[in-house]
Amino acid sequence: MNKHDKDKQPTPTTNSEPSQKLLDTKVSRRDMLRLTGATGLGLLLGGGAMGSLLSRGGTAAKAPVAPVQADSSIPFYANHQAGILTPAQNFLYFAAFDLTTTKLSDVKKLLQEWTTAAAALTTGRLVGNTNDSPNLPPSDTGEADGLTPSRCTLTFGVGPSFFDERFGLAGQRPSSLADLPPFVGDNLDPAWCGGDLCVQACADDLQVAFHAIRNLARIARGTAVLRWTQEGFQRTGEADPKNGTPRNLLGFKDGTGNPDVTDEAEMNKIVWQGSGDGPAWMNGGTYMAVRRVRFRIEVWDRSSLSDQEATFGRHRQSGAPIGARDEFDKLDLKAADASGKPLIPADSHSALAHGDGTVKMLRRSYSYSGGLNAKTGQLDAGLLFISFQRDLVKQFVTIQQRLSRNDRLNEYMVHVGSAVFACFPGVREGGFIGDTLLG
Amino acid sequence: MNKHDKDKQPTPTTNSEPSQKLLDTKVSRRDMLRLTGATGLGLLLGGGAMGSLLSRGGTAAKAPVAPVQADSSIPFYANHQAGILTPAQNFLYFAAFDLTTTKLSDVKKLLQEWTTAAAALTTGRLVGNTNDSPNLPPSDTGEADGLTPSRCTLTFGVGPSFFDERFGLAGQRPSSLADLPPFVGDNLDPAWCGGDLCVQACADDLQVAFHAIRNLARIARGTAVLRWTQEGFQRTGEADPKNGTPRNLLGFKDGTGNPDVTDEAEMNKIVWQGSGDGPAWMNGGTYMAVRRVRFRIEVWDRSSLSDQEATFGRHRQSGAPIGARDEFDKLDLKAADASGKPLIPADSHSALAHGDGTVKMLRRSYSYSGGLNAKTGQLDAGLLFISFQRDLVKQFVTIQQRLSRNDRLNEYMVHVGSAVFACFPGVREGGFIGDTLLG
Repeated sequence: MNKHDKDKQPTPTTNSEPSQKLLDTKVSRRDMLRLTGATGLGLLLGGGAMGSLLSRGGTAAKAPVAPVQADSSIPFYANHQAGILTPAQNFLYFAAFDLTTTKLSDVKKLLQEWTTAAAALTTGRLVGNTNDSPNLPPSDTGEADGLTPSRCTLTFGVGPSFFDERFGLAGQRPSSLADLPPFVGDNLDPAWCGGDLCVQACADDLQVAFHAIRNLARIARGTAVLRWTQEGFQRTGEADPKNGTPRNLLGFKDGTGNPDVTDEAEMNKIVWQGSGDGPAWMNGGTYMAVRRVRFRIEVWDRSSLSDQEATFGRHRQSGAPIGARDEFDKLDLKAADASGKPLIPADSHSALAHGDGTVKMLRRSYSYSGGLNAKTGQLDAGLLFISFQRDLVKQFVTIQQRLSRNDRLNEYMVHVGSAVFACFPGVREGGFIGDTLLG
Repeated sequence: MNKHDKDKQPTPTTNSEPSQKLLDTKVSRRDMLRLTGATGLGLLLGGGAMGSLLSRGGTAAKAPVAPVQADSSIPFYANHQAGILTPAQNFLYFAAFDLTTTKLSDVKKLLQEWTTAAAALTTGRLVGNTNDSPNLPPSDTGEADGLTPSRCTLTFGVGPSFFDERFGLAGQRPSSLADLPPFVGDNLDPAWCGGDLCVQACADDLQVAFHAIRNLARIARGTAVLRWTQEGFQRTGEADPKNGTPRNLLGFKDGTGNPDVTDEAEMNKIVWQGSGDGPAWMNGGTYMAVRRVRFRIEVWDRSSLSDQEATFGRHRQSGAPIGARDEFDKLDLKAADASGKPLIPADSHSALAHGDGTVKMLRRSYSYSGGLNAKTGQLDAGLLFISFQRDLVKQFVTIQQRLSRNDRLNEYMVHVGSAVFACFPGVREGGFIGDTLLG
């Protein structure tokens, strides 16, 4: 929820009939990025057309966003891990694991096995031996057999507890990777917190994402166990053919102000650890904050539209800043009415998340819905907030402290889960997940 | 899970570019039914072409399956409720409600309000007043604003408890609508059982389905509260461009043997209550059994492929009966090996679900995944089994008793939730949900 309206979140795409879509519809810049990413059409259009379509930043030629192959797979081996700058897929299956071994060699073996599995899972191949003996358990659990890769990405990280006394790696812990400080209003349940390892599985198909986590958990048996998991969703590309900014379960657009993931300089500033920032094994990696934020949906639903809009600092229907017309109009915190009262309340979510505009992060959140809360009988639904940043303290903690103290939105939500992870740099072919640390 | 391989479950379709698909790919009979349902192309092809494509049964002209409009909406007003014969959408949001009122007039008012809302929700319109005063809570919660109808269907029913002493309707209770008898191995949790009312929301987009239930729950405030809910999924049409039979989370195809929903005579025999069968208010309605079936995934994953196949009585990869080649090959329970041993074990799921083939029902189940089981730390995932039948006792109970006693699959699953509902006949324009009972 944090920085809701500050940064523009990448929106998902369907990979079907891109050329048809290109002919049939007006092509937005974002559409074009998606289409070129998906099919390489950019090459056909040539530099000139691309240049005019991609005027902002002009970074199309070296866009760091992971490309999508014709079979809807996103390459696993790359400089950076996929699932970070990748335009958000429709579904998430997030899993935190605890290690049950105390041998570092076991951990290394697990990460090597996960590497092989991840390369298969993200390309729609079966995990393991495709010629299993019928007398053995199948290497792959089978529920994704025949399905396309569905832009599946698997993003791996390690939590602060990975650097405790068990593995002798305390000296390698990045300084910003520590359990988050308590924030005002936190109501954390240990069942939704922490983890030695994490895997963020994203895909345009929930069954594909489920299958990935299930098979990774299976491979981990004897070395690691699931600690907590969360499924997430947003509207599908098919339900929103215009690929607008997705709405959260409070009905507001979420991600309007996310930074431009195709701007390499900006991503280096906001997302990726550079050399000298922290331990060398994290160069090209990033830090992830995860917060399970339960919405007080029933309370929200009883508040007036004007209260809701004042809470976000934006109009619900258009997503525009209050007083402005279009979603992407500038968030002008100085705009005032005739009496001099700010149009966008200073304690609105947008205003506080934006602050003075100097601190940014990349958000990549998903809605969740998990039945009824056993205690209250109300819907257990909200947001699995996920952000990526170069420094957890300077970025996520700074913004979240500001929000937790004053955000009007706090009345309508409660943070019930929390975790942070250092997400390794990308894996080169022949290498393995985490080899910069354990290789 | 019951009758897993007995009856062919309708598979979902995407509604995008059907004409393109028609030109590009070989068109199966099932594809053709989908395409004609989706776009009316059947009319263009004429009776002759349709006749040859739809040789089995030849019922295309009067197929009772709810048509899909060009905007991906399925008409709410119809002779039968939608969401029963409708080819299964990608997602489910199931909700059971308990009434908090004891006045029948309140119930009637709720069903009238739900009718108006359902007609809007299934056509992608906002619920209620689209010109809300900003000083009032918005009539629609907004998270589906701008999304297509996504083939959303809403199917309403009443449980046995609706006919207790509160509303004076005991004399109207259909005789087969009663809490199910205990089955061997049941481990029911009251948190997943029962309900005075149910709403089955299905859509090709989970956010659309969530939005529908949330708004219906909101409208019900003061009259009914949510008792339990369950999200469900299957693979999306985009992940499975061939529209094969979906696989359950045990990796096996689920629904191969479902009856043909386009065969009107068969549906009248299996699904719809005819006159004389029960109370007149249920003519054209049907009875729903819902079972929340948790899979013992970790145990299953340790069993050998041959054990898994013997458990289902089918090959995993192809879905064919053991010893046969193709998924839709006849389930020949008399086929034996050289020593005379049946190829398909008599206690396999397929064999027991099929029985002598005289008792059938229409299954329309979804996979679910709901994080970890708090007690065991294992994945809480499985199947929300849903079946529709003309008589709960003669059909569902008969088959489930057979399965619960002997099915090999019982080792790998446990029934944790259970409910039955009488699903009203369809609503005519100007009428309201349940008006045959309460009108």
